[in-house]
Amino acid sequence: MTIRSVLAVALLLSQPLLQVCDAKTMAEVLAAAKPGDWRSPDPDNTLYMELEAGRVIIELAPQFAPKHVANIRALVREQYFDAQRINRSQDNFVVQWGDPAFARPGVRKRAVPAEFTRSARGLQFTALPDPDTYAPQTGFASGFPAGRESASGAAWAVHCYAMVGVGRDEAADSGDDTELYVVSGHAPRQLDRNITLVGRVIQGMEFLSVVPRGPAPMGVYEKPEQHTIIKSVRVAADVPAEQRTALEVLRTDTPLFAELVEARRNRTDTWYKVKAGRIDVCNVPLPVRPAPK
Amino acid sequence: MTIRSVLAVALLLSQPLLQVCDAKTMAEVLAAAKPGDWRSPDPDNTLYMELEAGRVIIELAPQFAPKHVANIRALVREQYFDAQRINRSQDNFVVQWGDPAFARPGVRKRAVPAEFTRSARGLQFTALPDPDTYAPQTGFASGFPAGRESASGAAWAVHCYAMVGVGRDEAADSGDDTELYVVSGHAPRQLDRNITLVGRVIQGMEFLSVVPRGPAPMGVYEKPEQHTIIKSVRVAADVPAEQRTALEVLRTDTPLFAELVEARRNRTDTWYKVKAGRIDVCNVPLPVRPAPK
Repeated sequence: MTIRSVLAVALLLSQPLLQVCDAKTMAEVLAAAKPGDWRSPDPDNTLYMELEAGRVIIELAPQFAPKHVANIRALVREQYFDAQRINRSQDNFVVQWGDPAFARPGVRKRAVPAEFTRSARGLQFTALPDPDTYAPQTGFASGFPAGRESASGAAWAVHCYAMVGVGRDEAADSGDDTELYVVSGHAPRQLDRNITLVGRVIQGMEFLSVVPRGPAPMGVYEKPEQHTIIKSVRVAADVPAEQRTALEVLRTDTPLFAELVEARRNRTDTWYKVKAGRIDVCNVPLPVRPAPK
Repeated sequence: MTIRSVLAVALLLSQPLLQVCDAKTMAEVLAAAKPGDWRSPDPDNTLYMELEAGRVIIELAPQFAPKHVANIRALVREQYFDAQRINRSQDNFVVQWGDPAFARPGVRKRAVPAEFTRSARGLQFTALPDPDTYAPQTGFASGFPAGRESASGAAWAVHCYAMVGVGRDEAADSGDDTELYVVSGHAPRQLDRNITLVGRVIQGMEFLSVVPRGPAPMGVYEKPEQHTIIKSVRVAADVPAEQRTALEVLRTDTPLFAELVEARRNRTDTWYKVKAGRIDVCNVPLPVRPAPK
């Protein structure tokens, strides 16, 4: 072996070490973020769900479900969700709200086609390098956890914690947005491509996740007094500026986000004795912060 | 193409279809279970944690952490956990209890070595066929979700929802069982092989999972009145027979369990339009029922 090849081997070997020495924690990555690494959610695609416990903020995902998002916005503007109830809380699964009987005068029930998947074409996609149990590839698109498949050319939002979806009956297109749910446990990824996902809770998830579990099968409540009341749901754009919650969400299409993913794939905190070296799409944090003044 | 090869192709094609026709739902699989498909957890390895809201039942896992299980049993018998508090509840992560300051007179603090992994030798293992993001192989051993790696010959319990572990400081062997936690969100699998898992909540998880989230970083509470009090923790074997909760847990080393896994990998409910065809180890249900009289 010549000096040169020894050096080449040494260089090869040193790269992972260098990488580890350079590696940052998530806090260090975020501290280095520039204003352009953050984005402000569109007020037209932001919902405020007011509970007694506090405000739950949902960012809608028109990139994945444009028709359902438009319909939800219309339902909200008809005040359909005001004084509705959380009617179901199943441990390690979902919390669901709305009116299965749909007995709200003056609100128009509209049929909306299923939006389980969309074309991956034209969708910016930050791919994760690690294997996933359910999807050929996972990553992030427009700030939402997503999957895609080259064979079919399809992409879809995936059921991670805090993702919001549209309850439906047997028929694929029976979800009409009058009942919505949020994932409140381990990602039920078998639901991917079977139900329309419309957004993600970006603040206040801790108010929904502690709602008492319903005693009946599937977490359904037995008595009306067990229900949690939804005081109102509003589109942020319709709320006076001074009553809005100004938030920023970390962009998922930047080199900084790729650094954050690396920081979580290989934790450099000395607490960790074995680095996973991999990450599940639903374990990647999607940081949210108050908008700087 | 001869008649024979056409028949051969037809047979090949028909196999998946036949399988689908034969496939059962989980309810159908469980309805066909024989008494021997269930097991009674050992009362010596069962803890009753009494909260105001109800009884939480933990099955300990001496197969994975014999030294910690023995130490926890000793702490319980010294009544260390009685009147302790839930001091941390971090959304989508863990609920933790015990006394970080360890100021309990008459209770001996003992050093216990880390039990992050064990040898896979001698451990019955029902393997799952699907890829996992974190472990070379996943499956079930002695009723607990587990991973294993042929290169190192190691096996370990994995951090699924409801798994119970031992809080620790920086040093690997600093976990002395005076603080325990339960996974209350999406499986934080990066913790696997970094911390000792000692069991699983098999009943009453819904009492722990709704504990209000702490406002401080990591879900720590700011004031003592935010704490949930643990009335007592007892080893089931020490509780009078008439006060015990008689449960059975589905065995994970039987053909019936393999059928259950298949029923969940490929849901035959007509609600599902796309069958996942795969399953994450943390999405496999581990059924528990009242023991038949």
